[in-house]
Amino acid sequence: SNNSGFATASTFSRCVCVMLMCISLFPVSLAPCPSLPGGYEEHSSSSRAAGMNGNGPSKFVDPLEDPLPGVGTYEDFNTIDWVREKTKDRDRHREITNKSKLSTVALLHSISDAFSGWLLMLLVGLMSGALAGGIDIAAHWLTDMKEGVCLIGFWFNHEHCCWTSNETTFKERDQCPQWQSWAELITGTSEGPFAYIMNYLMYIFWALLFAFLAVTLVRAFAPYACGSGIPEIKTILSGFIIRGYLGKWTLIIKTITLVLAVSSGLSLGKEGPLVHVACCCANILCHLFTKYRKNEAKRREVLSAAAAVGVSVAFGAPIGGVLFSLEEVSYYFPLKTLWRSFFAALVAAFTLRSINPFGNSRLVLFYVEFHAPWHMLELAPFILLGIFGGLWGALFIRANIAWCRRRKTTRLGHYPVMEVLVVTALTAVVAYPNSYTRMSGAELISELFNDCSLLDSSQLCGYKPVKTGVGNSLADRPAGEGLYTALWQLALALVFKIMVTVITFGMKVPSGLFIPSMAVGAIAGRLLGVGMEQLAYYHHDWFLFKGWCSPGADCITPGLYAMVGAAACLGGVTRMTVSLVVIMFELTGGLEYIVPLMAATMTSKWVADAFGREGIYEAHIRLNGYPFLEPKEEFEHSSLTVDVMRPRRSDPALAVLTQEGMTVEEVEALVESTRYSGFPVVVSQESQRLVGFVFRRDLLISIDNARKRQEGVVGASQVVFTEHAPAHAADAPPPLRLRGILDLSPFTVTDHTPMDITVDIFRKLGLRQCLVTHNGRLLGIITKKDILKHMAQIANRDPDSILFN
Amino acid sequence: SNNSGFATASTFSRCVCVMLMCISLFPVSLAPCPSLPGGYEEHSSSSRAAGMNGNGPSKFVDPLEDPLPGVGTYEDFNTIDWVREKTKDRDRHREITNKSKLSTVALLHSISDAFSGWLLMLLVGLMSGALAGGIDIAAHWLTDMKEGVCLIGFWFNHEHCCWTSNETTFKERDQCPQWQSWAELITGTSEGPFAYIMNYLMYIFWALLFAFLAVTLVRAFAPYACGSGIPEIKTILSGFIIRGYLGKWTLIIKTITLVLAVSSGLSLGKEGPLVHVACCCANILCHLFTKYRKNEAKRREVLSAAAAVGVSVAFGAPIGGVLFSLEEVSYYFPLKTLWRSFFAALVAAFTLRSINPFGNSRLVLFYVEFHAPWHMLELAPFILLGIFGGLWGALFIRANIAWCRRRKTTRLGHYPVMEVLVVTALTAVVAYPNSYTRMSGAELISELFNDCSLLDSSQLCGYKPVKTGVGNSLADRPAGEGLYTALWQLALALVFKIMVTVITFGMKVPSGLFIPSMAVGAIAGRLLGVGMEQLAYYHHDWFLFKGWCSPGADCITPGLYAMVGAAACLGGVTRMTVSLVVIMFELTGGLEYIVPLMAATMTSKWVADAFGREGIYEAHIRLNGYPFLEPKEEFEHSSLTVDVMRPRRSDPALAVLTQEGMTVEEVEALVESTRYSGFPVVVSQESQRLVGFVFRRDLLISIDNARKRQEGVVGASQVVFTEHAPAHAADAPPPLRLRGILDLSPFTVTDHTPMDITVDIFRKLGLRQCLVTHNGRLLGIITKKDILKHMAQIANRDPDSILFN
Repeated sequence: SNNSGFATASTFSRCVCVMLMCISLFPVSLAPCPSLPGGYEEHSSSSRAAGMNGNGPSKFVDPLEDPLPGVGTYEDFNTIDWVREKTKDRDRHREITNKSKLSTVALLHSISDAFSGWLLMLLVGLMSGALAGGIDIAAHWLTDMKEGVCLIGFWFNHEHCCWTSNETTFKERDQCPQWQSWAELITGTSEGPFAYIMNYLMYIFWALLFAFLAVTLVRAFAPYACGSGIPEIKTILSGFIIRGYLGKWTLIIKTITLVLAVSSGLSLGKEGPLVHVACCCANILCHLFTKYRKNEAKRREVLSAAAAVGVSVAFGAPIGGVLFSLEEVSYYFPLKTLWRSFFAALVAAFTLRSINPFGNSRLVLFYVEFHAPWHMLELAPFILLGIFGGLWGALFIRANIAWCRRRKTTRLGHYPVMEVLVVTALTAVVAYPNSYTRMSGAELISELFNDCSLLDSSQLCGYKPVKTGVGNSLADRPAGEGLYTALWQLALALVFKIMVTVITFGMKVPSGLFIPSMAVGAIAGRLLGVGMEQLAYYHHDWFLFKGWCSPGADCITPGLYAMVGAAACLGGVTRMTVSLVVIMFELTGGLEYIVPLMAATMTSKWVADAFGREGIYEAHIRLNGYPFLEPKEEFEHSSLTVDVMRPRRSDPALAVLTQEGMTVEEVEALVESTRYSGFPVVVSQESQRLVGFVFRRDLLISIDNARKRQEGVVGASQVVFTEHAPAHAADAPPPLRLRGILDLSPFTVTDHTPMDITVDIFRKLGLRQCLVTHNGRLLGIITKKDILKHMAQIANRDPDSILFN
Repeated sequence: SNNSGFATASTFSRCVCVMLMCISLFPVSLAPCPSLPGGYEEHSSSSRAAGMNGNGPSKFVDPLEDPLPGVGTYEDFNTIDWVREKTKDRDRHREITNKSKLSTVALLHSISDAFSGWLLMLLVGLMSGALAGGIDIAAHWLTDMKEGVCLIGFWFNHEHCCWTSNETTFKERDQCPQWQSWAELITGTSEGPFAYIMNYLMYIFWALLFAFLAVTLVRAFAPYACGSGIPEIKTILSGFIIRGYLGKWTLIIKTITLVLAVSSGLSLGKEGPLVHVACCCANILCHLFTKYRKNEAKRREVLSAAAAVGVSVAFGAPIGGVLFSLEEVSYYFPLKTLWRSFFAALVAAFTLRSINPFGNSRLVLFYVEFHAPWHMLELAPFILLGIFGGLWGALFIRANIAWCRRRKTTRLGHYPVMEVLVVTALTAVVAYPNSYTRMSGAELISELFNDCSLLDSSQLCGYKPVKTGVGNSLADRPAGEGLYTALWQLALALVFKIMVTVITFGMKVPSGLFIPSMAVGAIAGRLLGVGMEQLAYYHHDWFLFKGWCSPGADCITPGLYAMVGAAACLGGVTRMTVSLVVIMFELTGGLEYIVPLMAATMTSKWVADAFGREGIYEAHIRLNGYPFLEPKEEFEHSSLTVDVMRPRRSDPALAVLTQEGMTVEEVEALVESTRYSGFPVVVSQESQRLVGFVFRRDLLISIDNARKRQEGVVGASQVVFTEHAPAHAADAPPPLRLRGILDLSPFTVTDHTPMDITVDIFRKLGLRQCLVTHNGRLLGIITKKDILKHMAQIANRDPDSILFN
């Protein structure tokens, strides 16, 4: 009843899934941006402007009243000004609130505006859940495709194929005549060395095909779709702009290639990329709502929630997902976002569950329930696992970064397709003979986490039958032949996984790191667990085990060791703490196992931190030179702001504008001669008293616009930033008034401010630049890039590795 | 086997508990502060100074090098400067790190310093867990004491008494000859109206006695021990100083009186006060570590974690506790604190579980496991419960605040003991006849949450036996006599609880709000749940119920309605969201029930917010006039900083010091003539260019010290804030150099800065004051109090209700 019931439910839910996926592609066509190949994140400034106020060229534009098209937007690969964005949103909100008192339509608009955040979260949850379900089902199907095909219909995967045929019994649910391996299909027999080689070759063929498709699609349509995406999303959430990184092409290509990459058998997971997919969904859906389309800060709130959604569907852990977003990814995470993230994460989890991709009513393959308690003494092996995890994390990060740097700097980087094919071939050739490397990462983890019940036919449960009479039926048993074979295979798998993961992560295919890391840890944990179990069995009257392992009761659970090891290794690589423990807690559902998990995670973090404070994501951010100001690290050095700001002592003086007295030509000459993104405006060159700050982009657009459309503005016109235009001679051209684009509340610190406070201000307020004063006089400017360069210098790294501003 | 096993385990764990409680009082004697009655939070400045550098009066003190005693400390009822505290801690850390390279001892010191945070968390967890266990056991015992006594030993509670005697069977676990009601003990019979009245009177007597003891102890030894404590803790965590609020006397008295207050049968809970107790533990334990003793900001990190610990032991929900601290209580919550809070919350939960106060291996009485799924249509009644919860929350807050304001302003406030006794007597008289009000709040909730199994003998499960043959054995059954009686009693209990809770919360005894709110919601939910169940039973072929309630399967779970109702009511009162849902999730352990909980909580918050944005804690903060800048609310008004700063247009000019040229006498005169907490220092009165900021307290201490100890400093000495002392005439007295106490990096904003940005800066950086400039010239100053007064004015409230700075 269960199986056939599932078949129906599954067919139904697949329909739902396909439907939802269709819906999820719907907003793309709704989005008011033209469909350029390569996709892009935002409107170009011109199309946005047209939508914004539609000023015809004939209309006279007063820069004091209407914002000019393009003013207040950002260029690609630049950092946003959080304060400006938040102010813009507050103004917008205030306007809507004020209008809502005037008419019913405006009131309805105000209410719909207030609820649009929730609606957006609902849509993000539904779309991401549906996509995750689709990815799970498709990856499952393609993975099985490497081994054989279903005769009833090629679109069935192995398990589903055998369920559909009603002849199977419980024992042989994986074996049914309808499912034929490639050798069986082609030669008619599945026995013998020839069939084995046939299957082996087909396995390699499919793996190469999938990998080739994946890397070609990524290169052809969406170069941003490769990798895990989490480093870039962290950077984007901190305020950076990478146009197209979360666009619809990235979404489509990442979804398809993720399935292909996972199915190709490479040592990679789908968890990190799912976060990227969820963020793409959120970014695309943002275009439906003006509130989020036009505001970079508001959009980043939604993206933070989407990161939670991604982890929620990846691990079936909504609470863990929210904490992951809070702890690991997000930069600005107000409490309102916490609540909405939680909502979206839940919606996604329930959408995924209604699709039921694994047929077990669970969201993940490796859900597990333990029943045996653990003993206080077992904390020692758990801490050992923590140390292993920490060492693995530190080693992996170093090796992977070294490899990626080599890829960036040598000729290796010129042949991404070749690289992917070689690594895939290598993986497939080595992986096939060993059943633990042949199965997918999630399946491997599921098997390793599993507790051996008496009925279990897995090789890992190949214990010798115990003599009856002792009553020791479920507890520790001596290992049998099967288990010893399994242990050998696992040990080999461990070595292989460690090596191949280092070169896989960072290739030009979508690749997550969670599953391979967890697999390494789970193997190590299971090995240690079985070792402990055998130790306890053969020395059961040793004083340590005496009171603890009484006959007739469960004693040691190797599956728990696997789980602890997985947590430790994942913790070592990513340096997650709370969120990792909560995700694992949601996988097991027992509060009791939090303590081992916590002990291992804590040890792992400490050990790994001893070798270097950076997690893998921060290391990749640094490798790519993104301007990311780590919110977790304290600034330890005792420098002052005056040491970091520009201009340095030997530099030419700071380029400033005066609030009056400069002509349009002079301003243009100053702007052209420098490459700064903005200029302070002072009362006069002599006093250097600060009036405000003006952005280069805004200045150029305004002058350009005024020259074109405002009568009488010529090169000799005065540029005036004061409130009231000064009296000018009758024959002089009319002044160009630019107070409208002047930021009258620039942030300032004094030159004596310790850098730790300045860094804190940058982090907490999300600044891009800050002006430095001394005794009330403008002295210099300090930008995020200056701070990052200074930090790099302190850490003996190359300050020029910081590429963007 | 289970019962006797528990008896042993229980005795053992009680010993452990007593031991831990002894340990937990140990730090008090270790703490280096004298034991004044009333307790206090910090060292007085003199004792701290003596411990800090022990300068003898003969030593010449250069203000540029050694900090003077008292400089950098705060007065009672003042706000701390977060930036200054954090800078102090960074300097301290830097010094230790630098020293650690020099010697092994210093290295060990550095390591112990790094781990002291974790050790502190461990101690806080152990101590709070032990205290919570002790409170649970004692309250259980005293509550039973109101009804009778155990003949084997008066120190056994009812349940324990009957377990200790081995004669009981499963059915009658609550009835055994060893436990005698008061009537039975005195008159020898427990039957008849006389015995009933006897018991009734004894119940009232004990209730009055406990309440009297509680209120007297609070008034005599620790006035701060009353109430729930959460509003004050929120304020303290935001940077306010209330000396003694978290002292050891408060801890001791609050622990004792909490037990008494809960046992007296008043409509209050122990959950809020447990947060206060945990914070007291943390504050006292902070004295063991210099790092936390001397730094107000670091101490607040520990207190944030302690708030999580409090909720963790109150509800057995460590994750929920951490989220509660993050969402509801904390102000400054760095990620490091998140991880440590989680650790402390877990330690506390496991300490409490090893004490096992309820004998069910659970941390709370009302843990529950549901098995039946819920139907999508049930969301309608769940949302109804949400609306009820929101209405209750809004109503309760208004009524309670009105009552508390009446207490503050009328003669009612002069008789706190009488008030407590009257309310207790009223509660006892009305509560005794109704079994649902007679039982304690936690027991009531536990009973209402409970799912009716077939064996259940509770009145709430008084269904009519169902005809066999239909197969409908567990599902909906028609209500019998017992259930109808129970419903009537519940309805009366609901009305009573609603009314009595309003006047109870805020009395001069420790009183939590969680349990009474949850009880109200649980009653309403259970009533609705049973109603739905009967509706579904009698109209089982109605189209709505047709497919849904198929015979033979569970259909509607009234216990789930009770839980949803409890969450809704608690949410309405406190406006918690994520943390509430997670706490409830941890109580049920099923991800499935999150959706109903979420729907109800969300509705409840929206409905309650429509009547007023404040939760009960914010309302009480406002009632008490504490300077609390709500981090969750957006500042909506469009004012500019210039509108809020001082001096206003009509005020006298800002009191400033010049960096040179003022004599000691002039400075003293200026300080004496004003009441400001600090003064800006400018280059000269004419230029008004800002140099720095100096605190009144630091200035007075320094001048005072210099006059006493520094040779030649007289009233006519110049006060100099510049780096290099100006040349002075040979006959003039030597200048007093005070650059050491000058804050050279005061925060500034321009007068044109919109207030929403200024408020954001205050919130995010934790400022106390900020200077306002215009075109580089100092214009005014804006303090937290100014902002709060401005906000009060906008909201049409009395700006003078903000009492402190």
